[in-house]
Amino acid sequence: MATYTTSRRTFLMASLGMTAIQAIRPSGPQALSVGQVIDRIKANVGIPWRDQTVDNLIAGTPEMPVQGIASTMMATLEVLQRAAARGLNMVITHEPTYYSHQDRIEPVEQDPLYQLKRDFIRQHNMAVFHFHDHWHGRRPDGIATGMIRELGWEKRLDPQNPRLFTFPETTLARLAQEMAAKLNIKTMRVIGDPQLPVRRVMASWGNVSLMPGVPYLAQADALIVGETHEWELMEYVQDAIASGQKKALIILGHLVSEQAGMKYCAEWLKTFISEVPLEFIASAEPYWRPDQVKK
Amino acid sequence: MATYTTSRRTFLMASLGMTAIQAIRPSGPQALSVGQVIDRIKANVGIPWRDQTVDNLIAGTPEMPVQGIASTMMATLEVLQRAAARGLNMVITHEPTYYSHQDRIEPVEQDPLYQLKRDFIRQHNMAVFHFHDHWHGRRPDGIATGMIRELGWEKRLDPQNPRLFTFPETTLARLAQEMAAKLNIKTMRVIGDPQLPVRRVMASWGNVSLMPGVPYLAQADALIVGETHEWELMEYVQDAIASGQKKALIILGHLVSEQAGMKYCAEWLKTFISEVPLEFIASAEPYWRPDQVKK
Repeated sequence: MATYTTSRRTFLMASLGMTAIQAIRPSGPQALSVGQVIDRIKANVGIPWRDQTVDNLIAGTPEMPVQGIASTMMATLEVLQRAAARGLNMVITHEPTYYSHQDRIEPVEQDPLYQLKRDFIRQHNMAVFHFHDHWHGRRPDGIATGMIRELGWEKRLDPQNPRLFTFPETTLARLAQEMAAKLNIKTMRVIGDPQLPVRRVMASWGNVSLMPGVPYLAQADALIVGETHEWELMEYVQDAIASGQKKALIILGHLVSEQAGMKYCAEWLKTFISEVPLEFIASAEPYWRPDQVKK
Repeated sequence: MATYTTSRRTFLMASLGMTAIQAIRPSGPQALSVGQVIDRIKANVGIPWRDQTVDNLIAGTPEMPVQGIASTMMATLEVLQRAAARGLNMVITHEPTYYSHQDRIEPVEQDPLYQLKRDFIRQHNMAVFHFHDHWHGRRPDGIATGMIRELGWEKRLDPQNPRLFTFPETTLARLAQEMAAKLNIKTMRVIGDPQLPVRRVMASWGNVSLMPGVPYLAQADALIVGETHEWELMEYVQDAIASGQKKALIILGHLVSEQAGMKYCAEWLKTFISEVPLEFIASAEPYWRPDQVKK
């Protein structure tokens, strides 16, 4: 399955005191390839690779030499521009490149912006690998691990349930404010009594549907999600509160609810990729609020 | 198709100076029925009734006597409680009752909260009618008409395109701030340069997918939506801006982006229903921001 090709040339150059960048550029015949990086990911992720998955090579070819790797939450054009400028020509992204979880091209194939992004990737000899299902599928979930580290919640984590956290009693307002500060979120939205006592918190990073949102909510005082539909889970939470249940929902925003998981991914990748530079590219929360800006 | 039953008793009572409430309670054998209300809606909406539609009677029976009607954006438990308290036992809702656009019960059938809501409706002899597709399908779109009135944008409306508005040049920040003030939105989210000059605005009230979001954005400086996925249309807008396009996205929140359309619906219903009290029940924006509340 996995093919490990140690570049003797890289090793030699490194031992001569040259940096990895110097050793790799221009890439020689033994340079690390995109396919090799993917093979190493498959070999190291710790779960069997699935037949049905969005974790595919979205742009580029397995044969392309890798000059550097960027892990990121979503391969926006801005992230690709920043990666290209830093010589990181393989981008490992948790969220889609072409505006579709399944990476369906047909809806946008004739769209000039899609074509511009596709051409930018080609012109910069870049490859994009979608790394979603198996990073979540890893035990423990790679996204959850990164978020827990970012929040400093390691000691809060329930040993039996990787989504459940127990706090010394706090309030919903305080929990939300602390998360907003730690994750630098300006557009967090919260449903529930701000003074609600909170001890048990369930977190489901990223998008959450009605199911499993309902059973998650049942297990905690407050459920944390990245994004969810207003006419499904949000209505359910409002009804739970109206019925007298002491419940709350914290909606972080999708990017900020997962991207520390891709920061952790960069660290994990470094444990088995050392030939090329490897960086996490962070994105700011994409939104602003009207009261935050000048007229 | 439609059956119009004028209640002679109601007419008589009204001519004697009695209010509709007095005339209808207790409901006599000639009282207005749920089925009659639906028939009148079908007869007055101005478009053929569709075979495939979510516009169905979700709770109650066509034979139930109607003591009063509430139009509302979403039949949350809190809205149902308020309607029941006001004697409005038929609720006409734009959004789902049971957390599903298709009103699918199976996922929640064993859920205690679903059962509590179902039982509340039964115990209060209430009926709930889902009125989504045909209110949007009406020409002009009933939701859009209500939102335009609420915003005072009648003179901005393009005569050729019911989603397009033209403004004397403003900035994105000013447009967003004015909308937040008029619609009383605290958790609006905006993507784009706050100082972007804005003249042409496209509005797609409610949920918007990548398509038709992309062609809508192409027609304007700023696109207004209720809610949309962060990994689809929001990524597309971010890429459009990164590519140099002068574009913006304003995300109002789903409820606040449509509920004035159900306020207008109450007025429209009154043009052909006069036997019973008929009120719009407004909901507040469901969210708060962490910086708005005390610790």
